[in-house]
Amino acid sequence: MSQPPDLSRFSINQMTVKQLSLPELTAACRELGVGHVGLWRRPVQSYGVEATAKLVRDAGLTVTTLCRGGFLTATAPAARAAALADNRRAVDEAATLGTDTLVLVSGGLAAGDKDLPGARERIADALTELAPYAEAHGVRLAIEALHPMYAADRCVVSTLTQALDLAERFPAHQVGVTVDTYHLWWDDRAPAEIARAGAGGRIHSFQLADWTTPLPEGVLNGRGQLGDGAIDLREWKRHVEAAGYTGPIEVELFNETLWARDGREVLAETARRFVAHAL
Amino acid sequence: MSQPPDLSRFSINQMTVKQLSLPELTAACRELGVGHVGLWRRPVQSYGVEATAKLVRDAGLTVTTLCRGGFLTATAPAARAAALADNRRAVDEAATLGTDTLVLVSGGLAAGDKDLPGARERIADALTELAPYAEAHGVRLAIEALHPMYAADRCVVSTLTQALDLAERFPAHQVGVTVDTYHLWWDDRAPAEIARAGAGGRIHSFQLADWTTPLPEGVLNGRGQLGDGAIDLREWKRHVEAAGYTGPIEVELFNETLWARDGREVLAETARRFVAHAL
Repeated sequence: MSQPPDLSRFSINQMTVKQLSLPELTAACRELGVGHVGLWRRPVQSYGVEATAKLVRDAGLTVTTLCRGGFLTATAPAARAAALADNRRAVDEAATLGTDTLVLVSGGLAAGDKDLPGARERIADALTELAPYAEAHGVRLAIEALHPMYAADRCVVSTLTQALDLAERFPAHQVGVTVDTYHLWWDDRAPAEIARAGAGGRIHSFQLADWTTPLPEGVLNGRGQLGDGAIDLREWKRHVEAAGYTGPIEVELFNETLWARDGREVLAETARRFVAHAL
Repeated sequence: MSQPPDLSRFSINQMTVKQLSLPELTAACRELGVGHVGLWRRPVQSYGVEATAKLVRDAGLTVTTLCRGGFLTATAPAARAAALADNRRAVDEAATLGTDTLVLVSGGLAAGDKDLPGARERIADALTELAPYAEAHGVRLAIEALHPMYAADRCVVSTLTQALDLAERFPAHQVGVTVDTYHLWWDDRAPAEIARAGAGGRIHSFQLADWTTPLPEGVLNGRGQLGDGAIDLREWKRHVEAAGYTGPIEVELFNETLWARDGREVLAETARRFVAHAL
């Protein structure tokens, strides 16, 4: 008899199978032997944060991350205060869900703003307020560098280097980084930066997605199923492991084609692809 | 009476107004006082290389660059030999057109290939053959780093750092770089790398385009008209000038909306935008 595939480190990010309701997702995870999930705020809020916490607890699942806080680049004082308040709520939700990691997508440039360094500095200012609040609630912040194609409208933190430069202004138990293959696979500095992150104890999350082309309009929902694209996923996993990270590995795909299919089938396929292309 | 706008450094890249035939383009340049054009191989070949050379010469235009050589990442020997032969033809065409600069878009990953460093090394190998050939014909090669979103399918050289690392294996009069705001505006290392390029005499071309969102499907034809996007164009021009570059500045926009309009009107608008946002 063949051994069952080793899914002990596999975590399914909810966005990969967003067509599944939370009860459907947790049931499918139990059936497939998936023990970890990464959750998103909006569907969790819709279902109820406490209710979600009970659901995943009863299913024996651990919540690897909550996605996402961030969007901390606003210049107007009211927008800035609102963003900080929303991020404190995100920390509260993470604590309720029992995850220790809140992923941050830092935010893009405001309309008419052309000052990338200034926007990055506003993120640092915001973290000064948020990081102690998160620590007090047992939550670590994980700055995610997004691919440079998102620099204008989504995240001015474009490289792992920049993410670490921000994180290292704070203690590692307050602020670290998310390493996501989709965002950094092109960057020849990333292996060294992963080593730097690991040495500092700052790899708070590791996510996989593959790079497929052509990119769709808006470039948001074209993340490839593992093995379908250009990224040597196993090589990146080696870098992350060499840096000392042995935690769960989330697969987070935004993909219209996957979303159009049966969610349980996509979850099963994603688990198989994880075994075939990342283990 | 107001002074006429200073277009002495403005060069219109043919692709910006590709709806214009070469005779229409050269006539429009004369009328608007535009003295420089950047040309593309395909329309030049269609019109005839010698005929194009005569046309631009008779119009008193200088050809700032020929776009483009490159696509040097093939692994199969026959494909590799074909690429080298095609690049030698591109050098010949550049020499015939009277431009000293051939822009190189280096090429992406072959299907199934996941080895970015290997692909970059094949570019270096190809340059070893091409650079002396180009020099013998009075042509410099200008490696263009393309935005990381093109790393898989178009150009594995994603940063100015990588472009310079390649170029510096050769003499500056053989191989330099193209600095294009569209491709490097997100990169906080780029200002220092522009200084490095200038110190080495390797800024062989400077191109402007703005960054607008959302990006279109395929992300090729969404380059923004100057002033419409997130890039501080004047700041990048300052970096390039501080590095010692005082040559022509090409505006190269791939933009379906601009292509759908009257080409002469787009050329006039582009010249006005250049004055308003880059001078």
